[in-house]
Amino acid sequence: MPTIRATESGEWTQLQDQAAAMQHERMHLRHLLADPDRLATFSLSGGGLFMDFSRQRVDKRTMALLYQLGQTAGLQKRFHAMVAGQRVNNTENRAALHTAARNFTQAPVTVDGVDIMPALRRVRARIQEFVRCVHDGDLRGATGRRFRHVVVIGIGGSYLGTEFVATALEAYADKGIQLHFLANVDIHNFGRIVTRIDPAATLWIVISKSYTTAETMANAAQARAYLESVGLDPSRHMIAVTSQGSPGDRSDQGLLQAFHMFDFIGGRYSVASAVGCVPLSLYLGYDRFEAFLKGAEAMDRHAAEAPPEHNLPLTAALIDIWNNNFLGYGARGIIPYATPLSKLAPHVQQLNMESNGKRVSRHGEVLAVPTGTIIFGEPGTNAQHSFFQLAHQGRPFPIEFIGVLTPQYTAYNHLSQGVTNHQELWANLLSQPMALAVGRDHAEPARCFPGNRPSSTLVLDDLSPENIGRLLSFYEARTVLEAFVWDINPFDQFGVELGKSLAKGIRTTIAARNRGDEGPAPHDDPIVQFYLDKLFQTKQG
Amino acid sequence: MPTIRATESGEWTQLQDQAAAMQHERMHLRHLLADPDRLATFSLSGGGLFMDFSRQRVDKRTMALLYQLGQTAGLQKRFHAMVAGQRVNNTENRAALHTAARNFTQAPVTVDGVDIMPALRRVRARIQEFVRCVHDGDLRGATGRRFRHVVVIGIGGSYLGTEFVATALEAYADKGIQLHFLANVDIHNFGRIVTRIDPAATLWIVISKSYTTAETMANAAQARAYLESVGLDPSRHMIAVTSQGSPGDRSDQGLLQAFHMFDFIGGRYSVASAVGCVPLSLYLGYDRFEAFLKGAEAMDRHAAEAPPEHNLPLTAALIDIWNNNFLGYGARGIIPYATPLSKLAPHVQQLNMESNGKRVSRHGEVLAVPTGTIIFGEPGTNAQHSFFQLAHQGRPFPIEFIGVLTPQYTAYNHLSQGVTNHQELWANLLSQPMALAVGRDHAEPARCFPGNRPSSTLVLDDLSPENIGRLLSFYEARTVLEAFVWDINPFDQFGVELGKSLAKGIRTTIAARNRGDEGPAPHDDPIVQFYLDKLFQTKQG
Repeated sequence: MPTIRATESGEWTQLQDQAAAMQHERMHLRHLLADPDRLATFSLSGGGLFMDFSRQRVDKRTMALLYQLGQTAGLQKRFHAMVAGQRVNNTENRAALHTAARNFTQAPVTVDGVDIMPALRRVRARIQEFVRCVHDGDLRGATGRRFRHVVVIGIGGSYLGTEFVATALEAYADKGIQLHFLANVDIHNFGRIVTRIDPAATLWIVISKSYTTAETMANAAQARAYLESVGLDPSRHMIAVTSQGSPGDRSDQGLLQAFHMFDFIGGRYSVASAVGCVPLSLYLGYDRFEAFLKGAEAMDRHAAEAPPEHNLPLTAALIDIWNNNFLGYGARGIIPYATPLSKLAPHVQQLNMESNGKRVSRHGEVLAVPTGTIIFGEPGTNAQHSFFQLAHQGRPFPIEFIGVLTPQYTAYNHLSQGVTNHQELWANLLSQPMALAVGRDHAEPARCFPGNRPSSTLVLDDLSPENIGRLLSFYEARTVLEAFVWDINPFDQFGVELGKSLAKGIRTTIAARNRGDEGPAPHDDPIVQFYLDKLFQTKQG
Repeated sequence: MPTIRATESGEWTQLQDQAAAMQHERMHLRHLLADPDRLATFSLSGGGLFMDFSRQRVDKRTMALLYQLGQTAGLQKRFHAMVAGQRVNNTENRAALHTAARNFTQAPVTVDGVDIMPALRRVRARIQEFVRCVHDGDLRGATGRRFRHVVVIGIGGSYLGTEFVATALEAYADKGIQLHFLANVDIHNFGRIVTRIDPAATLWIVISKSYTTAETMANAAQARAYLESVGLDPSRHMIAVTSQGSPGDRSDQGLLQAFHMFDFIGGRYSVASAVGCVPLSLYLGYDRFEAFLKGAEAMDRHAAEAPPEHNLPLTAALIDIWNNNFLGYGARGIIPYATPLSKLAPHVQQLNMESNGKRVSRHGEVLAVPTGTIIFGEPGTNAQHSFFQLAHQGRPFPIEFIGVLTPQYTAYNHLSQGVTNHQELWANLLSQPMALAVGRDHAEPARCFPGNRPSSTLVLDDLSPENIGRLLSFYEARTVLEAFVWDINPFDQFGVELGKSLAKGIRTTIAARNRGDEGPAPHDDPIVQFYLDKLFQTKQG
């Protein structure tokens, strides 16, 4: 482990000077891109992906300094420590072993001397058998109907990753099962799903590590009451994914089955665990889920083993730090030119912003530099017709373009203006990074483009389960590597605690009013009290 | 019209001093909120909405200076000029009359002396009759089937606003019609919709002002080829919303009908025009669409007539400027605690970022201050479990919370921890702004919350069509009022031109290769050429 924090190192200071040098007009991207070797120098292939960072505002010296910074931060050593099962989540005294959930080698992975691999394999084997029973009709609902709908009750990390993968691989969903997500406690979410399912053919999966998450418990209680109201036995229609020993793991909870998740895999890193395995195997088939895991495993290995200068997530993480702390960009756009990747940005939004939006180091010191960044995005070309005006002529922000060479649909090849839809998509995907980087002068000021706006382009061969696994692992590895540069803990999330604890107090006040307690004490906060009065004056749900 | 630009006025300088003063510890929100009159002083009701800005980092002096700035900028005068039909879109020499599309008074609205109201009313009457025919079964598909699916082919402003309203009002969609959006040129978008429709029962609406938008034309051509391939006459299944005289308005285009849009209503402001009227009336019924318009009209009137200190969109716009230019926040989160408002953020993202992401004034001078802001958001409570870690402990950004007093679903009232789901939602909605503003000290640094993070809360009584109209108008008025402070033109979008023009060149190169032209000239840009080679090496769609 390094003794000098990277953010206080000599490289950090040198990079600040380098950032100042990059402001010079001769370092404008339009000049950097005049180098015919630009793409060859500033692109990488590895782990099944291609990453082009030729339109980032970097030169060879910048990259050399960034790799030195990575060396000082001990990035790969820390990554190895994580993969090997050390308690890298130091504030919660836990390991962070999402990589173990897709490790198909026979090597043991130990936490304090105990090999955790057999337990992971056992859970996966149980899920595989359960899913087989559902698909074959050996396991059916209370009235003997086959399961045709699966409702995932879970929020945050028990939802967004699975939604991303399910959306990306929808074209593979041939098991006759529709997947629904019940995340928000808003009764609209529940009410809408109920109009779309057939309750006798519906399986509900309650996903919560602690089995105490307020929203998930409220929705699970609503589902149970609904099942009873339509005369169906909830214990034939509800299963849980939860920790061993949690309230949802007890046999008296009226659940058909419980599959275990582990404290060494955090919510936002949990798609590869039972959290994703149960719903995605039901939706896509277990074999496709395993293919997805194997893609993730390949990228994990690349992240662990490829030398820094050939390492995609490591290089991407260093460029993120460069854009964030040295060039001063506070946001990053993720623009996949692929409709199936429409839920990638919301997933990475959680993964990255919850991991790295921190103000103290893992040792508790308040940091001198900002960490984390705002992540947002919509698919292209849609985004071009939405917010790209600001990207081109307003506040600049780095953009990550994503392209897919082969689409899933090959049936529709009508040409418009001489090109297929897929080619039209690519024409746009290729034009935008160039327009942002190079810009354009024009006699009319409103038609001038200043250019010098940075972007990367990430290319996938196709949207196979393996490649979606690679993409998932790429973003996970990059996120933790960013954190390692900042010396923060990307695995805790204490920032969500205060809101939860205040909500508890408000809930208690509301519950007292619901019970009709005589003159329940007004809430401490007069603004809260104002709204509660307003709420109780209206007809409520 | 003012002669001094607001950004160069004395108030601007005073506001800079005021922002410096607000940095002082005694101006921390936890102290400002100790004032028992805080909410009464810093909240407004009007136009059917309630806006609480008590958790913004403002005091009375800040607000007084902001209203003076608004006076200097001539905000209401400019708003009146817009509503009255002046050519406020000066760079394109057009009026900006989205408000006229929901003006139910009998007063004329003239552009250069010509009353445009009769034309708007005529289009609406024609749509009303068309929709009646579809709903009554007087108008059917080529094989005599009733229309059960409507596919909206349109992108950007021909898509996002309609999607927002349709999603918000889904609970009212009782006409037996499913709505689908075909925006992205990505063939996945088309391929997925085709698996979900019954072609003999599907009506396609092609929406494009110029009828030349590349994506929309490609998708329309794909739809036409598909209809022909399944033996259905496209002219019985496709209609257009387009400008008078555009290629889609000609009778030889094989379309069943064309409804007109006008050059005085820009795409991102066009939901109230035929762009929204055709699909939303089919989906919800014409009467509900008209109720939506009437809600928008009420807020338009409020924006035009309420004095500045009681004017919601005007006050919100001034606070946006304050947060953006004086406190230095470069992004804004929109967090509706209502699943039906899940498409509000993507709509406002376009509306605001495309309108105000500009670098020159309406007279072409390069601006000295940044304009526009990054807008992003997801519904709460989901966002709490996703990116709120960063909001609480990472980079701060202002947040706009939105609450709805009465939910659409009242059937599901099972209590969890003594409260309904709707009450649980409100407990969270009330706790988050407080946690962000007040913060918390703690012995463990990782559990400290610095607080002083600004937010507003917007409250709707319910999600009626009228209230969705109010909300739409609120964001439109606020967006243009921000622009008027900056003295920019919120109605043009020259920033999207360069990308389009570069895409055209790339498309030409691809089309030449498709035709098999011998040795088509390589593209000027070696990076583009690299990708084109890659694309042509792979099996494509």
